[in-house]
Amino acid sequence: MRKKIPVGVLGATGMVGQKYVELLTNHPWFEVVYVAASPSSAGAKYGNALSDRSQMQTILPKEPSDLIIKDVSDVKSAERKCRLVFSAFEIGDKETTKKLEEEYAAAGIPVFSNSSAHRWTEDVPMIIPEINPSHLDIISAQRKNRGWKEGFIIVKPNCSLQSYLAPVHALNQASFPVKKIVVTTMQAVSGAGYPGVPSLDMIDNVVPFINGEEDKTEEEPLKVLGEIKRNKIVLRNNLSISAHCNRVPVTNGHMACVSLAFGKRKPSCEQILDIWHKFSGEPQKLKLPFAPEQPIIYRKEENRPQPKKDRDVDKGMAVVIGRLRPCNVLDCKFVALSHNTVRGAAGGGILNAELALSRGLLKN
Amino acid sequence: MRKKIPVGVLGATGMVGQKYVELLTNHPWFEVVYVAASPSSAGAKYGNALSDRSQMQTILPKEPSDLIIKDVSDVKSAERKCRLVFSAFEIGDKETTKKLEEEYAAAGIPVFSNSSAHRWTEDVPMIIPEINPSHLDIISAQRKNRGWKEGFIIVKPNCSLQSYLAPVHALNQASFPVKKIVVTTMQAVSGAGYPGVPSLDMIDNVVPFINGEEDKTEEEPLKVLGEIKRNKIVLRNNLSISAHCNRVPVTNGHMACVSLAFGKRKPSCEQILDIWHKFSGEPQKLKLPFAPEQPIIYRKEENRPQPKKDRDVDKGMAVVIGRLRPCNVLDCKFVALSHNTVRGAAGGGILNAELALSRGLLKN
Amino acid sequence: MRKKIPVGVLGATGMVGQKYVELLTNHPWFEVVYVAASPSSAGAKYGNALSDRSQMQTILPKEPSDLIIKDVSDVKSAERKCRLVFSAFEIGDKETTKKLEEEYAAAGIPVFSNSSAHRWTEDVPMIIPEINPSHLDIISAQRKNRGWKEGFIIVKPNCSLQSYLAPVHALNQASFPVKKIVVTTMQAVSGAGYPGVPSLDMIDNVVPFINGEEDKTEEEPLKVLGEIKRNKIVLRNNLSISAHCNRVPVTNGHMACVSLAFGKRKPSCEQILDIWHKFSGEPQKLKLPFAPEQPIIYRKEENRPQPKKDRDVDKGMAVVIGRLRPCNVLDCKFVALSHNTVRGAAGGGILNAELALSRGLLKN
Amino acid sequence: MRKKIPVGVLGATGMVGQKYVELLTNHPWFEVVYVAASPSSAGAKYGNALSDRSQMQTILPKEPSDLIIKDVSDVKSAERKCRLVFSAFEIGDKETTKKLEEEYAAAGIPVFSNSSAHRWTEDVPMIIPEINPSHLDIISAQRKNRGWKEGFIIVKPNCSLQSYLAPVHALNQASFPVKKIVVTTMQAVSGAGYPGVPSLDMIDNVVPFINGEEDKTEEEPLKVLGEIKRNKIVLRNNLSISAHCNRVPVTNGHMACVSLAFGKRKPSCEQILDIWHKFSGEPQKLKLPFAPEQPIIYRKEENRPQPKKDRDVDKGMAVVIGRLRPCNVLDCKFVALSHNTVRGAAGGGILNAELALSRGLLKN
Repeated sequence: MRKKIPVGVLGATGMVGQKYVELLTNHPWFEVVYVAASPSSAGAKYGNALSDRSQMQTILPKEPSDLIIKDVSDVKSAERKCRLVFSAFEIGDKETTKKLEEEYAAAGIPVFSNSSAHRWTEDVPMIIPEINPSHLDIISAQRKNRGWKEGFIIVKPNCSLQSYLAPVHALNQASFPVKKIVVTTMQAVSGAGYPGVPSLDMIDNVVPFINGEEDKTEEEPLKVLGEIKRNKIVLRNNLSISAHCNRVPVTNGHMACVSLAFGKRKPSCEQILDIWHKFSGEPQKLKLPFAPEQPIIYRKEENRPQPKKDRDVDKGMAVVIGRLRPCNVLDCKFVALSHNTVRGAAGGGILNAELALSRGLLKN
Repeated sequence: MRKKIPVGVLGATGMVGQKYVELLTNHPWFEVVYVAASPSSAGAKYGNALSDRSQMQTILPKEPSDLIIKDVSDVKSAERKCRLVFSAFEIGDKETTKKLEEEYAAAGIPVFSNSSAHRWTEDVPMIIPEINPSHLDIISAQRKNRGWKEGFIIVKPNCSLQSYLAPVHALNQASFPVKKIVVTTMQAVSGAGYPGVPSLDMIDNVVPFINGEEDKTEEEPLKVLGEIKRNKIVLRNNLSISAHCNRVPVTNGHMACVSLAFGKRKPSCEQILDIWHKFSGEPQKLKLPFAPEQPIIYRKEENRPQPKKDRDVDKGMAVVIGRLRPCNVLDCKFVALSHNTVRGAAGGGILNAELALSRGLLKN
Repeated sequence: MRKKIPVGVLGATGMVGQKYVELLTNHPWFEVVYVAASPSSAGAKYGNALSDRSQMQTILPKEPSDLIIKDVSDVKSAERKCRLVFSAFEIGDKETTKKLEEEYAAAGIPVFSNSSAHRWTEDVPMIIPEINPSHLDIISAQRKNRGWKEGFIIVKPNCSLQSYLAPVHALNQASFPVKKIVVTTMQAVSGAGYPGVPSLDMIDNVVPFINGEEDKTEEEPLKVLGEIKRNKIVLRNNLSISAHCNRVPVTNGHMACVSLAFGKRKPSCEQILDIWHKFSGEPQKLKLPFAPEQPIIYRKEENRPQPKKDRDVDKGMAVVIGRLRPCNVLDCKFVALSHNTVRGAAGGGILNAELALSRGLLKN
Repeated sequence: MRKKIPVGVLGATGMVGQKYVELLTNHPWFEVVYVAASPSSAGAKYGNALSDRSQMQTILPKEPSDLIIKDVSDVKSAERKCRLVFSAFEIGDKETTKKLEEEYAAAGIPVFSNSSAHRWTEDVPMIIPEINPSHLDIISAQRKNRGWKEGFIIVKPNCSLQSYLAPVHALNQASFPVKKIVVTTMQAVSGAGYPGVPSLDMIDNVVPFINGEEDKTEEEPLKVLGEIKRNKIVLRNNLSISAHCNRVPVTNGHMACVSLAFGKRKPSCEQILDIWHKFSGEPQKLKLPFAPEQPIIYRKEENRPQPKKDRDVDKGMAVVIGRLRPCNVLDCKFVALSHNTVRGAAGGGILNAELALSRGLLKN
């Protein structure tokens, strides 16, 4: 049995950080040997620091529980311990986060980040492994640009778009390019971290606003669906997205009501279902540990997907969709769901790392 | 002081029926003297029949509490007691409901109905008093067609569209006709009556489907926004609506995320705000008791409207909207809210009756 | 018409402060002319400062909306403007709060406080007007002790005990002294202020712990039910209370499941119901504006009281109880409810001020 | 590999029936080969019958999905297919349910029942395997009384008491007999089945009443903690229980706030913790597949247990408790949690069957 790769989790006491630690328990390739957080938590045992703010629904094993939390800005300390880090911290402003992630990379530590800081950095790929694995090719340019040898930075896009982007990509790929999307999201509170959304705003209520979320939902897909040209990721053009983002009283699972329009070539509903059914990506081909067997699961029941019932399907890594039907204004419409802290955050980050490892980007 | 008009509530033990009784307590013009329900409840005192299924948040006064519930099909009994009825019953299939409402009208009792049974009957007007009060002119044709002298039937449209239709109408009226609407609703559970939606479906969940609701949301506006031509209501054309209807864990208040497109004439956001701000209808002019002072209230805060905070504004009769901004796919988008069991049901029905009375349709 | 008394609200941007401002709109005796908060909010217009953190379900009138927020520690400024203050602030530790409240009193401004800081100060009465109005007699000693002429401090007890203490007091008063109470509370999230309880802790969950709440629930009743002897409030003895305090996903309304034991004299359930039915206090005698007509309302339905349906009864100032039945371990048991931010906080504070005014403690 | 025992689930389309099917997927000993329900569902494929009323959070495997639902009263049909049945049906009144369960037993099919019908039948044991496995000895008398050869009936007690009864039993067993219990439950909606509790009663609300639940919670423990004497189960005496049962907006997991009094021998809190920590039962000794490793898990955090975080611990079969502290009225108090549809229903029934098999009560 191959020895596991020692990894660190930055921002380990937060919502997404906790999810990383929970999901990596018993991971076949990676082992959490290092946890870091803001200076105020540093020095405590990880298990004690969580205490009454733990969001885990499992009992934390002794191993990560006994780890001493390090200061997230102590890159040296991480360098000695871990071969890659999952980054779920936010410290100060965007620039500070960017720089700190770069310091890790410069120290030879690959960074798989959930932060939005580097999403629009030109040579940083924003990866959903089933959609744009080839964007990892930019890493060599990234290393060259910055003089990094072993380190690099890979980000994943925002959780709000993960439910509908794979279905859209599948259609693009099948030569039915999508031109317009009107999407209304109903997003879970875990997306705002902990403590996050006050319960007074969520009991018997919906909040039709999430700061910055609509911009991300409208713009990030253009990069994910883009192409590498001359060592740069060129945004997809001819695609317009309009997003309404809402916070609803759901713990986990972001829903999206999607209407879309194609170009001249318009598939029938049957064709779309067939395309989704057959869709499979590189993680499936490589049989990566966190890859869902089928990345897009279509439910035929007229009242699905639902966050509570469908978010955990295939470890929370599958996208579950339903209700495909014609749209009176655009061409067709459907409902999509993905687990925002798994597929949309920690699980997505882990899958990115598995993909990078399989592609030889990590020293073994 | 003028004596109040004695009225009846049909389906008085249901969610909407209870709301009628609650809202009519202390109404300046109308007085509930008669309650009817299905045969299984008939004979009991109204207060006792509610008992542990009461949805009221006030203490029921002695008067309606002591009324003996009549069988809803006993039209004779109603004839002796009440001068008009608010109908919130559903009995058997649509045809049965239609016929029973017609029997009331034939017996000389005007019917203000919440049921969907007669919404598509050609000579039955579907009224939102701020939008199409002139559709009441069809009543004379209705009476003539059917040989009714004093009775008639007036319906209101579905609760799901009440939040956004007045704002759309205001724009149409201001010579910026709306051509396309993509709307996603997040609807409260009271819309499904009691017992209605099981709590297992609503705790930590969203259900992206409400039976029949999307059709109503897409089609009924065409009649409400239509015109009377040759004693018929002609549907509005050149308007396409696409609806996604969701049930969310909210007790009262239907939200709608609306994207819309105009024809060639496109107003700026400032113009739209100004149009909404100045919008006023016949109920306001007539100062009807249930008319909100301002039918469309725009909130400037970036996170409003919210069901819990805004549904009860101006007795639950105002529509509260916010977040007007450009749409990347259509022209502009906004969020709208209306109280589904007040403006969207019982309150809307009462306003219809007040309007009819003011227009002389009811014998005084 | 007598001119209204100008009052201030300290901590006006918080949950309870907002409730004070909301409830005092149109109060017949008092008028909010002054709002204060922590230095970070000072200087802003009150309406702007609330903005997206407003918890009001009504539209804030222009008057308080336009008030400029003052720094809560600027007592001089308050002295010029208001004749009494409602205090809902917490600043720094308990000692700081205590001192600041004392500064207001020393400046001649009576303080009606929701803070727990002074609840155990010997010469500060902890008042529920229906229970211990006579404790106001301690004010003369309080003034004398401290050299205050017009100012004084009156506090109210914790919200968690307000639902069951009036019913218990009614029994004591009727010569059936209660000796033991086991109470389990299910408390609303508004009790924790805003932002308060994270929604991740409240969706699909119950938290069986509220910091400090069980001690307050067990100890404060002993002072409220105590007697003044030689210018001191002597605690009630021979009463043991055991409390389990839980936070439940409810916005407003604290419920309590109460089992109690009497001494040798044990009333029958019929006697208890009769005692509660007849119970009335000084606020009712004086017809104070915020006094509920009947302080204890007993519901006969087997599934009441319920927070959503019963919390707002009689302006949220009545206690609603139900389900009186024998207890297998103690003598009898019942369920009690009170609105925690109205009767248990702002409404209770206003009723205290009305009582003090009626008793001549305030200069007119 | 031993062939699995073919089993049936009666009432398979209901909440608990679905849970049985879900939990038995991949069970090492049992295999669901038969599902039955009311005549109205009979004849349909199981997967189709669930459709939009499915409460499963996993994807139903092909095997049970394709089973044709049989009529629950068709005992002959079950006889041919299954060697034991898990009964989660309720048909007509209690007597009908009793008789039908007896018919299964008479046909040689052991019945493991969740119904309350036979709980007070003298020769039917009410089993919690960690507490009273020896009550299975009554089966020989039961068979003799009724002339059954291979069949028998075993029931489990109500879900509301499962969280605190094992902790109480552990103390009894350690020679600190518990004499008095005051317990307030906060119960999940899944306990009422599907559709069960209306969402209008659960959003922003608590209902302080569950029909019949307080009686069960007060009385059933006396049988579970009783002893077999002369072929009869004699109730435990010297134990008084008083229950307040509430429905709270939680999907799964019944909480209990428990105060208890001992006889003369009173353990310290340390002793109690030690007793609970060491407690283990026959299922643990036998290493039954559904036995939790540790039947009572004590959490030290001051805000645990919580339904959302702790209900699924050890497959939902462990009881999680916390907050042990002295009680001002009785001796000590604590909070307890168990998963009501797993440990308190289907999981408990499966554990009963595993125990019966291990004890040789089932033909192999």
